[in-house]
Amino acid sequence: MSNISKNHPRYRSLIAREKLVDASNNGLLAHSAMIAHGRGEAFDYLLGEETSKSAKLAIKEVAYRLNKSKNPIISVNGNTAVLAGEDLIRIAAVLECPIEINLYYRTEERISKLLQLLNEQKDKVAKEACPEGWIGDWDKSVNSVRLLGQENDGLIIGLEGPRAICSFEGIQRSKTVLVPLEDGDRCEALVALGKEVLVIDLNPLSRTARKASVTIVDEVSRAANLILNEIIIKDYEIKEWDNESTLRDALEIISKSMNKI
Amino acid sequence: MSNISKNHPRYRSLIAREKLVDASNNGLLAHSAMIAHGRGEAFDYLLGEETSKSAKLAIKEVAYRLNKSKNPIISVNGNTAVLAGEDLIRIAAVLECPIEINLYYRTEERISKLLQLLNEQKDKVAKEACPEGWIGDWDKSVNSVRLLGQENDGLIIGLEGPRAICSFEGIQRSKTVLVPLEDGDRCEALVALGKEVLVIDLNPLSRTARKASVTIVDEVSRAANLILNEIIIKDYEIKEWDNESTLRDALEIISKSMNKI
Repeated sequence: MSNISKNHPRYRSLIAREKLVDASNNGLLAHSAMIAHGRGEAFDYLLGEETSKSAKLAIKEVAYRLNKSKNPIISVNGNTAVLAGEDLIRIAAVLECPIEINLYYRTEERISKLLQLLNEQKDKVAKEACPEGWIGDWDKSVNSVRLLGQENDGLIIGLEGPRAICSFEGIQRSKTVLVPLEDGDRCEALVALGKEVLVIDLNPLSRTARKASVTIVDEVSRAANLILNEIIIKDYEIKEWDNESTLRDALEIISKSMNKI
Repeated sequence: MSNISKNHPRYRSLIAREKLVDASNNGLLAHSAMIAHGRGEAFDYLLGEETSKSAKLAIKEVAYRLNKSKNPIISVNGNTAVLAGEDLIRIAAVLECPIEINLYYRTEERISKLLQLLNEQKDKVAKEACPEGWIGDWDKSVNSVRLLGQENDGLIIGLEGPRAICSFEGIQRSKTVLVPLEDGDRCEALVALGKEVLVIDLNPLSRTARKASVTIVDEVSRAANLILNEIIIKDYEIKEWDNESTLRDALEIISKSMNKI
């Protein structure tokens, strides 16, 4: 796909960019998806392109809540599927929960292309060795992950038009939604419906980051990888979750990175 | 083109986004151009989407140097042409200097599409009233602006492949280059050739921002508008230019914006 050297200090970021350009050329993404990715790139750069200590705490909290929830759902849009589809399929396999393709700019064509991408990713993940520390029939667990999103039979109350459409069995019915890279309006609507909304967002000032139940300020693939591990090891001390504090920590890191010159 | 209300607090930013999406659909931009715009959006957001005091000083300095230069050139890429083409044509008309289309990912097709866009913009600008404070035949001045970029007869020494191609009469010959949204490698190569490199870049930490002779940390269209005014009013006190100080100011603004929560 590319000739970027693995030794390049920004290898992961450059590969992510290439993946999105390819996906965009193949019609998997809305046009503004690339702009959204650029915004994320800028924030990740300011965060030093690594998972901070407070993001790690948020990851632990998200893993705990996903484990505890009776019917969690993982909602993915185009950028999420391209950047972290495989990671999220592993999480869904371990949690035995479905994944729902849910798009801000919904078109049936893109839903169906993303469904195809996730199915290919499922086939690939099913052939891997199971994650470290997990016990069971990996191939079977991965193949059991349901991919929702085409059915159109649910509604996110509080939104209008195609943005409100969701799957009844997925987002509508679930109490706990892991929804990376979500739009502010939709995050707010999900919170207003009393759902536990777990987000991954690189911008600690975004409406999504500020409204969510738990916000992981981190790059989606890096975070998903760590969530998987935490879900498996289940090493958790119960304490009150202070989401504002995780946002303040991220802001402080960015603020400090401004002293580079 | 759009139904975004003029009263929307982020109207200009949303219109800019739409313009780029349209231009991308029409093949005027490289795919990564949208990602680059997103990065810019993030920094502009952190800067409060307004021209800071220190950016205004940099704008004065750039206007002074453009006025003083014997043969300045304005180098534009796809994003710049789409976002600020008309503003830069006005500047070129007042300075009586050419504009060169110069692309990082050069293809003859995009050069020719951007040339067409700039020609359309020229026709539009020529029909406007002349800028306030300027005296002369506006229609004639605008129509005299030469658009370079197709000729391929120059070289930016220090770069390889298509990225090195430029116009002899434009970038190669000029001592002073106004080059908004430039790539770090190319900025460095131009500086190494002894040119005075005047940039507009929203990321105060970028290599371009740090290597340039004068860096305006501001959105390209906002900045170009103000440069035009400063070129006309010529209100300038000569003093030593400290480019690091303008970058530090921008970093401080961003750092302060991190305390919003």
